[in-house]
Amino acid sequence: MASPESQDLVNLYKGWVAAMQAKPDMELEEIRKLFGHWGDVTVDPRGVDYIEVDVEGIPAMWAIPKNSVQDRALLCSHGGGYVVGSMYTHRKLFGHIAKAVGCRALIVDYRRAPENPHPGPVNDMATAYRWLLEHEKLSPSHIALTGDSAGGALALTTIARIRELGLPLPAATMPMSPWAGWDTSGKTYDTNKDKDALVSRDTTEALGSLFIGNGDPKHPLANPLYTDYTGFPPIYIQVGDAETLLDDSLRIAERAKAAGADVRIDVYPEMQHVFQFLAGNAPEADESIQRMAAWVRPKIGL
Amino acid sequence: MASPESQDLVNLYKGWVAAMQAKPDMELEEIRKLFGHWGDVTVDPRGVDYIEVDVEGIPAMWAIPKNSVQDRALLCSHGGGYVVGSMYTHRKLFGHIAKAVGCRALIVDYRRAPENPHPGPVNDMATAYRWLLEHEKLSPSHIALTGDSAGGALALTTIARIRELGLPLPAATMPMSPWAGWDTSGKTYDTNKDKDALVSRDTTEALGSLFIGNGDPKHPLANPLYTDYTGFPPIYIQVGDAETLLDDSLRIAERAKAAGADVRIDVYPEMQHVFQFLAGNAPEADESIQRMAAWVRPKIGL
Repeated sequence: MASPESQDLVNLYKGWVAAMQAKPDMELEEIRKLFGHWGDVTVDPRGVDYIEVDVEGIPAMWAIPKNSVQDRALLCSHGGGYVVGSMYTHRKLFGHIAKAVGCRALIVDYRRAPENPHPGPVNDMATAYRWLLEHEKLSPSHIALTGDSAGGALALTTIARIRELGLPLPAATMPMSPWAGWDTSGKTYDTNKDKDALVSRDTTEALGSLFIGNGDPKHPLANPLYTDYTGFPPIYIQVGDAETLLDDSLRIAERAKAAGADVRIDVYPEMQHVFQFLAGNAPEADESIQRMAAWVRPKIGL
Repeated sequence: MASPESQDLVNLYKGWVAAMQAKPDMELEEIRKLFGHWGDVTVDPRGVDYIEVDVEGIPAMWAIPKNSVQDRALLCSHGGGYVVGSMYTHRKLFGHIAKAVGCRALIVDYRRAPENPHPGPVNDMATAYRWLLEHEKLSPSHIALTGDSAGGALALTTIARIRELGLPLPAATMPMSPWAGWDTSGKTYDTNKDKDALVSRDTTEALGSLFIGNGDPKHPLANPLYTDYTGFPPIYIQVGDAETLLDDSLRIAERAKAAGADVRIDVYPEMQHVFQFLAGNAPEADESIQRMAAWVRPKIGL
């Protein structure tokens, strides 16, 4: 049974949905302010420093756990449908993951849609990856990607973009509840409709259209359901079984396996979209982050 | 009229009070977790780095705005009745103030009551002040204190302790809604009873008894209503007129003036306890922080 603490995320999501339903013409800035509270359910990881940096014009933030190694890093892409969320909403979440792994995390504030639609975000993430190699002098074998929701998609599509650029690939990637963008064909949009407190076909379609603009919603750099996973590093997906997006994760895992990738997927019972936000608060989140750390540490040589 | 955004703080406080009333035997850890959400109403100041430091065994955190001067500092004491609150709940609040002033802020996680009752907190703050002088090599004329609620009291009592230790005094202090500890004689406990969403005689007495332990509730280092303000640097108090603690501020200002101190006090209409928490969110908070910055900058030579 889901922990009582995990209800905090359900309440947060229900509050957002109620606020948006009460004001159907809500401006984008107000929606962004609402989602600015995403991190409110995350308890501070403590012992993690946060230092903002400019990555070739892209704002970003290092989360640096005390006593962490400096020659390994997580490259982190936050969620929010490519439209909302920021390095501020996600600093505690990625701070927890970095602390569990024992290395630094670079949280990228990629430029968001609709101001910067596809391929803006994936290009910003690839720029940040190259910056880790060239500016921070990190070995690609010492870098893992992670991200949630749209940022979970980016933790996959960025690798395809890196490959396209001819850069060496990172050691691993850990998408949390990855989101297939403007695609609502997953059957869990129906079967989990009453369980998922946040994501519905409406939200996916609204955010997805801002993200894709006039582009192709099935572009392999825009939608991880269409990404070519040939030659990918190991992939570890976590997702909740109460999510409308559960099928996105299952189908991504299947497609990546079919392409020969080493894929692990853990489906958490009764958990909501990006339940890892409950880090420090609910046991499911803490346990899942410990699993991510145990999985990724040997892959980046820790 | 109070801004609609300022209602966020009323709602936060009412939620806490309702939760505590629904569970009168709530454990201290649960109360601390509740107050862990204090900063949820504060919008991230952006462009502020946070670096934890050990100050002679006392945990603390630098809030360092980008492009700020390094040779001036604010010494910050967080609120929470000496029992709850932390450098994590207040990082964004003090980050906003530091950014407005244009210098670094040291947020001290002084050891709290009941584990560390009076004079523990005031001693920890005085240690942090001495550390700024000796370890950071700051001039006392380049340091100002600030704090809220119990931390607002500490922004006064710490100076009395510094004087007692024979150390040179700082340039200025800016208490926000200072709290006179275990003293509920202020008449605004009655007149603002229905306006103040958080502080009642009950809360003050419960927290005050944890803080004072077996000590003297009228000790001048424990209660700013009894502090000797002779020779004090300039004092700037901000308080809301909806507060039960309004009288604490008015009486502190009166006492400090009578001792010859240069005192300014601004009473904000319809504002709640530590309304500056609404920084980045409600205009009253942003305006009050700009006033603090304009007042303190020349005092620390900026």
